[in-house]
Amino acid sequence: MQISGNLLIGQKAVRGTNGSIRAVNAATGAPIEPAFGGATAADLEAACALAWAAFDAYRETPLEARAQFLETIAQNILDLGDDLIERCVTESGLPRARIEGERGRTVGQLRMFAGVVRDGDFLGVRIDPAQPERKPLPRVDLRLRHVGLGPVAVFGASNFPLAFSVAGGDTASALAAGCPVVVKAHSAHPGTSELVGLAVQKAVKDCGMPEGTFSLLFDSGREIGQGLVKDHRIKAAGFTGSRGGGTALMQLAAARREPIPVYAEMSSINPVLLFPAALKNRADAIGRAFAASLVLGAGQFCTNPGLILAVDGPDLDRFIEAASAALAETPATTMLTPGIHKAYETAVGRAADHAAVKTLARGAAAKASNQGQAALFSTTADAFRQHAELHEEIFGASSLVVRCPDLATMREIVEALEGQLTSALHIDEADHADARAFLPALERRTGRLLVNGFGTGVEVGHAMVHGGPYPSTADGRSTSVGSLAINRFLRPVSYQDMPEALLPAALQSENPLGLNRRLDGKLQLAK
Amino acid sequence: MQISGNLLIGQKAVRGTNGSIRAVNAATGAPIEPAFGGATAADLEAACALAWAAFDAYRETPLEARAQFLETIAQNILDLGDDLIERCVTESGLPRARIEGERGRTVGQLRMFAGVVRDGDFLGVRIDPAQPERKPLPRVDLRLRHVGLGPVAVFGASNFPLAFSVAGGDTASALAAGCPVVVKAHSAHPGTSELVGLAVQKAVKDCGMPEGTFSLLFDSGREIGQGLVKDHRIKAAGFTGSRGGGTALMQLAAARREPIPVYAEMSSINPVLLFPAALKNRADAIGRAFAASLVLGAGQFCTNPGLILAVDGPDLDRFIEAASAALAETPATTMLTPGIHKAYETAVGRAADHAAVKTLARGAAAKASNQGQAALFSTTADAFRQHAELHEEIFGASSLVVRCPDLATMREIVEALEGQLTSALHIDEADHADARAFLPALERRTGRLLVNGFGTGVEVGHAMVHGGPYPSTADGRSTSVGSLAINRFLRPVSYQDMPEALLPAALQSENPLGLNRRLDGKLQLAK
Repeated sequence: MQISGNLLIGQKAVRGTNGSIRAVNAATGAPIEPAFGGATAADLEAACALAWAAFDAYRETPLEARAQFLETIAQNILDLGDDLIERCVTESGLPRARIEGERGRTVGQLRMFAGVVRDGDFLGVRIDPAQPERKPLPRVDLRLRHVGLGPVAVFGASNFPLAFSVAGGDTASALAAGCPVVVKAHSAHPGTSELVGLAVQKAVKDCGMPEGTFSLLFDSGREIGQGLVKDHRIKAAGFTGSRGGGTALMQLAAARREPIPVYAEMSSINPVLLFPAALKNRADAIGRAFAASLVLGAGQFCTNPGLILAVDGPDLDRFIEAASAALAETPATTMLTPGIHKAYETAVGRAADHAAVKTLARGAAAKASNQGQAALFSTTADAFRQHAELHEEIFGASSLVVRCPDLATMREIVEALEGQLTSALHIDEADHADARAFLPALERRTGRLLVNGFGTGVEVGHAMVHGGPYPSTADGRSTSVGSLAINRFLRPVSYQDMPEALLPAALQSENPLGLNRRLDGKLQLAK
Repeated sequence: MQISGNLLIGQKAVRGTNGSIRAVNAATGAPIEPAFGGATAADLEAACALAWAAFDAYRETPLEARAQFLETIAQNILDLGDDLIERCVTESGLPRARIEGERGRTVGQLRMFAGVVRDGDFLGVRIDPAQPERKPLPRVDLRLRHVGLGPVAVFGASNFPLAFSVAGGDTASALAAGCPVVVKAHSAHPGTSELVGLAVQKAVKDCGMPEGTFSLLFDSGREIGQGLVKDHRIKAAGFTGSRGGGTALMQLAAARREPIPVYAEMSSINPVLLFPAALKNRADAIGRAFAASLVLGAGQFCTNPGLILAVDGPDLDRFIEAASAALAETPATTMLTPGIHKAYETAVGRAADHAAVKTLARGAAAKASNQGQAALFSTTADAFRQHAELHEEIFGASSLVVRCPDLATMREIVEALEGQLTSALHIDEADHADARAFLPALERRTGRLLVNGFGTGVEVGHAMVHGGPYPSTADGRSTSVGSLAINRFLRPVSYQDMPEALLPAALQSENPLGLNRRLDGKLQLAK
């Protein structure tokens, strides 16, 4: 498949005429051919109209057909071969091994959701059979299933050009839920986006899905993204990016005539709590592991460990020494875009200049443009409590150590933190009692609590929560990674006294789909 | 227990000093002693602080203890005996049998949620065990459970002084989910609210729950209700009332520094679709059944059948005749409050005066103040499409018949309707093919589809959806009636590589709570 710079509207390739976007080689800053045409309002209208027209048919596709569609997308992405990998490496500046791994994750996600669709548990079938003899009133027959919310707008993320972009987690979970998807590509990787878009578009055709099941739009500004969230046919949105971008979409969605859910994954500093015994026994090892997590992918992960909390003392100093030594040997790394690099440098410079902040270590100096140099800072507990700006995420390989006088202060600091995607506890057995006292405060503000590890490396599974209370996400009631994400795009519908002939297959008494069901409130396995 | 007019803040009875509310005999308009003191900002602060302080302990109460707490509330409500029934009849103007039934429903709801808590499925436990040998990277151990969102603000509803008020569905589901509750009582039934509040307060004490698990506030204006939704310790709100009230709360919640979910059940006209064969075969019977549903509870149900859609012709005329005859014999009925009665009269008067609307029937004239007189109107399909005001709910026993030239037009009208709590189809077997074509449009905009019945009479069960797309509710992803409502107040938390000693009991490998669990994505029953 060849990159043309076109929009993909249903089965058509359409030249966008609303400005243009140029891909850039992240490592060199050189522009790459061809230019991508920005979508017009008419293109947006066409994509939304097609998505809406597709919805009723797509959401009732048999589970097996929908599962095969997801698997076909996965295979078509693999079939793009090295062209995809090379383009993605060039556009993102991320290493080849990472991009190959990310492709594996993307394909794995699509296949996992194929399994979720086949399994059918996401339909959440509940049947309360009629009780015609009940007194004083007979009981009606009630059957419940979940249906897709409607067409979903998906915003590609800069930092996961495959796994959270055109055919990433949001798209996979929305398609699995029975929702057509209109993607607004991220301008950081338009060529990657088009290639993956072509793979999805081909899968729609290969599998005979309704044309409007998928469209891909480029946008040279913000109009199309905003227009998508405002369009009355769009019933939910998935976004990964900055807090500013996410909250703007939340506000647009809340101001609609019909407000819709926005699932925005925004910002998190992912506190890492080092407990005394662990620090005493393993300060060096934890310091090195922390440095490795911090610089992974140039620190451009939502789960990057941006905050270290520990009781001050020689053990913490050893941790800092080990981490600093490791960071000093870390080469500067190409960042995703010149804009992200510039924002990182500005934020790191501001931290370094902050009166209450001390620079502990920097990574090796940059050897080329657009390379991020890791940074480790420290501050005091008092200063951290006083300065709200120190709680803000720095997107990139920067972290802040807060030297706490004692565990009680450390707990107060936890209580002052905003919502987080992850919180990590480094503990040995002697720390258990101390750690236990922190758990309620951490649970209240975190989607994923992890022990003796770091948040980077988000396992795509069934028990994963990649989400968390605001402002880490717009809606802490859900996850953007893992099979539970399908719930974000579903709503329950109840059918009362409906004749078998009119009931959806999922709700028919004979259970033709072989689903696990809740009968009179009691879960029953089909087999 | 005696009505004192006090606020219930934790275990204290506190005299509110911010204005006062007076209960009124709905049938006579006479004020009833005593006056209820309105809550001050300090009272609000005290209730929220207590709720917040209670949250961590309350959400970790053992399931059996929490279930017994819900059952104790139920028993304490029953123990209020006739005092509660009499006060509630006086304040609401609803018949004694209805109030006794509603008490049964309220108690039944609490007991149902006790069962849901014991069952433990609401925890949604998922375990993806570690795979230390996995290549290229070992897999971590991930375990997921759901936890309560935090303290919940519950707004009592005027039309269900027991089942959707102080210890109604919202309170029961929030308490079941592990969330403390602060109730803002509805001023239409303050005495009923206090009595039920005392029953809950006593249950908190009887069961040794944390003091702040429950508080009850009265408000002579809107400050306290708004203050509750704005308070940073409140993490969700449940509301049943007008669209104006609900959307105001939605906006407040969205504008918070940390936006929170508002579950507002607001307005619905609950379309009833009469299909040709059913109308031909059973026009009279359907007409009579419709009239009975329309006037139930003086029409003061969210699921009241406010719109009839049918193909024009002699069969529809027969339906109208039968319904009109039944309505003409229906005595006017006391409405919940003078304000609601006045709003009903105004809206019915506006409909009667509407150029495009014809009055088909009225119920018997009022014989006392505050009595609502049923009303049946008709209009044409064209007029209904042109006049948005005809789509608005009239709260009370008023309905509008839209005479459609054919089924295609009827379908267009369905596509022009807003989100609905219920849609009803009256069909015979010969109508199945026609009805099937309507189902997608109805599913997209309805929480509960029902056949050959009316939406009034909302079964409290496991397969019930009492919810629907905006504006019938604020959030169509949930239900306010039935066991699924517990999900509204939960969020998932994932635990990675956490030692058994620190894991919550629900997630421990030995499964000490005997829970159904999803292991590696596969549902497994505990027994």
